[in-house]
Amino acid sequence: MKKFQVVGIGNAMVDVLTRADDAFLAEAGIGKGIMQLIDMDRAVDLYGQIGPAREVSGGSAANTIAGVAHLGGRTAYVGKVKDDQLGAIFAHDLRAQGAVYETSFAPKDADGETGRCIVVVTPDGERSMNTYLGVTEFLKPSDIDPAMMADAEWIYLEGYRFDGPESHAAFAKAINATHAHGGRVALTLSDPFCVDRHRDAFRLMIREDVDLLFCNRAELLSMYQTDDFKAALDAGAKDVAILVCTDSEHGAHVLANGAYWHVPAVPTKVVDATGAGDLFAGAFLWGLSEGYDMPTCGRMGCVAAAEVISHIGARPESSLKNLFKLHGLI
Amino acid sequence: MKKFQVVGIGNAMVDVLTRADDAFLAEAGIGKGIMQLIDMDRAVDLYGQIGPAREVSGGSAANTIAGVAHLGGRTAYVGKVKDDQLGAIFAHDLRAQGAVYETSFAPKDADGETGRCIVVVTPDGERSMNTYLGVTEFLKPSDIDPAMMADAEWIYLEGYRFDGPESHAAFAKAINATHAHGGRVALTLSDPFCVDRHRDAFRLMIREDVDLLFCNRAELLSMYQTDDFKAALDAGAKDVAILVCTDSEHGAHVLANGAYWHVPAVPTKVVDATGAGDLFAGAFLWGLSEGYDMPTCGRMGCVAAAEVISHIGARPESSLKNLFKLHGLI
Repeated sequence: MKKFQVVGIGNAMVDVLTRADDAFLAEAGIGKGIMQLIDMDRAVDLYGQIGPAREVSGGSAANTIAGVAHLGGRTAYVGKVKDDQLGAIFAHDLRAQGAVYETSFAPKDADGETGRCIVVVTPDGERSMNTYLGVTEFLKPSDIDPAMMADAEWIYLEGYRFDGPESHAAFAKAINATHAHGGRVALTLSDPFCVDRHRDAFRLMIREDVDLLFCNRAELLSMYQTDDFKAALDAGAKDVAILVCTDSEHGAHVLANGAYWHVPAVPTKVVDATGAGDLFAGAFLWGLSEGYDMPTCGRMGCVAAAEVISHIGARPESSLKNLFKLHGLI
Repeated sequence: MKKFQVVGIGNAMVDVLTRADDAFLAEAGIGKGIMQLIDMDRAVDLYGQIGPAREVSGGSAANTIAGVAHLGGRTAYVGKVKDDQLGAIFAHDLRAQGAVYETSFAPKDADGETGRCIVVVTPDGERSMNTYLGVTEFLKPSDIDPAMMADAEWIYLEGYRFDGPESHAAFAKAINATHAHGGRVALTLSDPFCVDRHRDAFRLMIREDVDLLFCNRAELLSMYQTDDFKAALDAGAKDVAILVCTDSEHGAHVLANGAYWHVPAVPTKVVDATGAGDLFAGAFLWGLSEGYDMPTCGRMGCVAAAEVISHIGARPESSLKNLFKLHGLI
């Protein structure tokens, strides 16, 4: 048995969650429903404009790993934080959830701070993300421990990390160590604009290295530069062994080994959409690793996504296992 | 018209909120339902024991001021934080709510950090608080701007601050400046054990300087060292012009000018009791300052307390004015 079921690699961030209406988004120049990268000056300026906020550990792959760990899965996470108060919060919350978090902290005198994401939640539950990457931008090959990757059933790579100068090489190192020892590689496309920035690199990695691709409808359409969702699903299924595409209130589409399953969404009131895709992926990967079939993994993903969008914050607050039991999945 | 309706002085803290059961409290040696002071070593040790947490600005008087500001009141707050990430969070959240927060930050090289309170919320909604005071302990007379106090209709003093070596003198300076310009002084007893530590000093201040005393049943009984609640209310009413005693599910008791009003509680599901007393006081003071009568102010307090205990965190998340309208109070 491998030591880890899932090892995640991504942007280590603390979320700064606040509520505002659409007029505020327009006034503050925030693109709705997407992730935009901002620098420290903009982060300070925007923080001065938002209302009272709360701080919760976030980071896309870290949320996924927190979900797997919450379900009792054996997990580890790799992502850079600084030796500051937000870094301590991020590390605590992953470890307290049961994940291994061993990445060394950037020292107190390093440039930048622990990354943070100012998340503005509008009354419709949509989240608009403003990301100051800080030290997490500089994840590099030496941060990857090949022994950890070799001991993983799955590694889970966050597409956002393609924005870092040395992270492609870090991903390549992780992929090689994982595949050399029979592990598999999952990737999430993260965001349609992120796909736009890195389409060719994503495409190459998906075809050559990825065993499971997570994405949502907008990301998949952006990836294959088409408006025809069916064509995009077919194209994706040709590129990767397992394609899992979430589709908001329409649930999720799973394509593997020539088969197709549609999984319906779990109806819920959307309070804060932050983390829906992340927790979907966490539940899906946990299910796969535990030996459940594809449609069951997809349903687990939808149940987990429904839980996390029913409250503020991107990590589970009720027992996902209890919810899986209620839905007859375990 | 004075510039400020309420100026609060208290412990500036960020709350670290987590959930756990009663067995955890016993194992970790945490007294249930009370505030215990801890040092940095214990804070680090306890933080290592708790599960995932979220960070929200807190501090008793700061929550009260946030409540008054949320209602549109003109407010300011005085309490020490450090020039660190948690200090920035604390200051942001008060200013973003509309309060003036002018206290200078303790410099980066000062001993200690911004104070924090590890709040463990049990399934019954009770909160058990573990307070590392940090730099907030050292509030001293030079932190008090007499001009600000002179321009306040009310100053609101947090009993917890009696635990600081120079804070009695700071309070005296604030009281003198306020009273000299026709303002009034409110005090909250904060906690029965805090009353135990400072009973004589509290008693003297209540008799000589306080115009409005906020407390709850346990604090009042501790203050007057009796088991007879009626006798304690009578004793309190002799010491102070306005006595407001909250009483959990029994609502609140208001005694002023020889009159007595009982105000029923607003039924609600208790998710997290943190901040109930603080928001009661904020709504009551806002009501008084706006010219509402005593029983109406008491009902406003109960409505505000019900709002804040219905969710995690000690500051309002829904519009208190809308709730006051729903209850026919404004």
